Amino acid sequence: MNPAPALSDIQQAAKRLAGKTVLTPLLEAPLLNDVLGGRLLVKAECLQRTGSFKARGAFNALLQLPQECKNRGVVAFSSGNHAQGVAYAARSLGVPATIVMPRDAPPLKIANTKAYGASVVLYDRETESREKIGADLANKHGLTLIRPFDDPHVIAGQGTVGLEIAQQCKEIGAVPEHVLVPCSGGGLASGIAIAIHASFPGTQIHVVEPEGFDDAVRSLASGRRETNTKKSGSICDALMADAVGDITLPILRKERVTGLAVSDEESLKAMGVAARYLKIMLEPGGAVALAAALFGKLAVKNRTVVVVASGGNGAPFLQAEAISRFSELKLNRGEVS
Amino acid sequence: MNPAPALSDIQQAAKRLAGKTVLTPLLEAPLLNDVLGGRLLVKAECLQRTGSFKARGAFNALLQLPQECKNRGVVAFSSGNHAQGVAYAARSLGVPATIVMPRDAPPLKIANTKAYGASVVLYDRETESREKIGADLANKHGLTLIRPFDDPHVIAGQGTVGLEIAQQCKEIGAVPEHVLVPCSGGGLASGIAIAIHASFPGTQIHVVEPEGFDDAVRSLASGRRETNTKKSGSICDALMADAVGDITLPILRKERVTGLAVSDEESLKAMGVAARYLKIMLEPGGAVALAAALFGKLAVKNRTVVVVASGGNGAPFLQAEAISRFSELKLNRGEVS
Repeated sequence: MNPAPALSDIQQAAKRLAGKTVLTPLLEAPLLNDVLGGRLLVKAECLQRTGSFKARGAFNALLQLPQECKNRGVVAFSSGNHAQGVAYAARSLGVPATIVMPRDAPPLKIANTKAYGASVVLYDRETESREKIGADLANKHGLTLIRPFDDPHVIAGQGTVGLEIAQQCKEIGAVPEHVLVPCSGGGLASGIAIAIHASFPGTQIHVVEPEGFDDAVRSLASGRRETNTKKSGSICDALMADAVGDITLPILRKERVTGLAVSDEESLKAMGVAARYLKIMLEPGGAVALAAALFGKLAVKNRTVVVVASGGNGAPFLQAEAISRFSELKLNRGEVS
Repeated sequence: MNPAPALSDIQQAAKRLAGKTVLTPLLEAPLLNDVLGGRLLVKAECLQRTGSFKARGAFNALLQLPQECKNRGVVAFSSGNHAQGVAYAARSLGVPATIVMPRDAPPLKIANTKAYGASVVLYDRETESREKIGADLANKHGLTLIRPFDDPHVIAGQGTVGLEIAQQCKEIGAVPEHVLVPCSGGGLASGIAIAIHASFPGTQIHVVEPEGFDDAVRSLASGRRETNTKKSGSICDALMADAVGDITLPILRKERVTGLAVSDEESLKAMGVAARYLKIMLEPGGAVALAAALFGKLAVKNRTVVVVASGGNGAPFLQAEAISRFSELKLNRGEVS
């Protein structure tokens, strides 16, 4: 398989995932449209199995493993959503799974990963390399490493989100002018870009990152792989990869993707708006694309804009804070108070 | 039209609603199934337009009005979800709407009803009759009264929830042994019972009410129309009708529906569980069926049980409290702590 998946790889992934992952709804809130003066469509991947889109790529990768690899088991490193996706897919397919997670990952994500039956190995995000720990475990026990984004099967799996968005837009007669996608390593955004452009070649795709962790934004601007200087310090725990991938960056560039960044406060506000207007629970990293649309990083007025709400495995205290503080969206000002 | 809608009325309603309401997902959380030892399917009507199933009945009723009635306008009385459903349907169809709401309705519901463009008339739940205010307005201005539940068109519209549940169960190869439905006046439950029994005649339907407002539970036990003594005092503001309807009660009896009741605390816990495991925001009244399944009012163990999550227009402070206090579901004990 060519490093960059083709549309046909994503289409085959969709067939492979049937009955394993679910078609998530493309939500729309008329009152939110009124406030924004445009049409905002929200792809609710928080409603995907395991609470994020990551189950798609995990299933697509695991389903293509030779039986002897399935028998030996898989290993993955992840801040939490890829962890749950791989753990759940592995359990569903009877494959042993070891997941390497940072010690400061949200307790909910660690607990869920264990509950799906995986062995969890914790590491220190500041001093240890998750890549090295994962590689060592793979070598020592003959495990297959399931990378979080720089794997064509994983990218193809995540790309099924884009196939669904395209199909759902067609069903309601909507032409998405912009699609905003939360970005860590770029697996979701690159898969979505390929799938969306097959149906809507004129759609502009944007990655959205937390401020201070905007390596993809800078990489897409400079044309080369930029890295983040910080390794922690955002509430968007799901979006803190050091850099986009060797496979994903060329795809994002080829698909002419550009980047936006939002503050942690804006992500938190978007979580509150999502709860009030859309009735979905998002985690901070899953809310950055919605935040970008709500807070003027990209104007929605007179446009049709799709945002991907990529995950909902947030810490309960943050979700409660978001709802308490940011349930009101001031009409006609595009501003939450 | 016969007072009790037939299956064909519900099927026609489904055609009428196409493009106006949305197909809501039937959600499932593997970790919740693990805890309960069975299969729990959650019909997420909080994701319906206006945040509750009420948009269905409202559209089905308004779409069948003669043009001269549409021109004069409609009136409805409601604690908040029927209010929003009628206001939204009316706006979509260009019909003026006046909504009579209790002064102590959740501010969110009053604000949304106004935001959908309706004229809102407030009344005192303890001292005034909403039925009389509604009838007076109807007589004075020639408005058509859209009843919240005792109307065959409204019942048929709500019944489309049941058609969708039956179809969605068939698609995943599930046979629902029990379907639990939140109940105020019985419009949703009676419509769902007719629709589900057409596909699954052996399924037991249950209405679920808040303790102290269990008029339907008692009416189904006694065989005659029982009323509630209290008019306020539950956080389940959506489920406080005095009694089930003259049309709905005979349907519920014919369909052999039985009743369950849950405490306010159990509803609040269910809201927390819904946020953590299902990533949806429910209001207390929308969470009673889930609460009944979670807290042993009906055992889920080794069964396939569908619960309807009927609405998500909860007060933000209650939603935040539910998430803060009840995000943990103790494994293997079927108990939230």
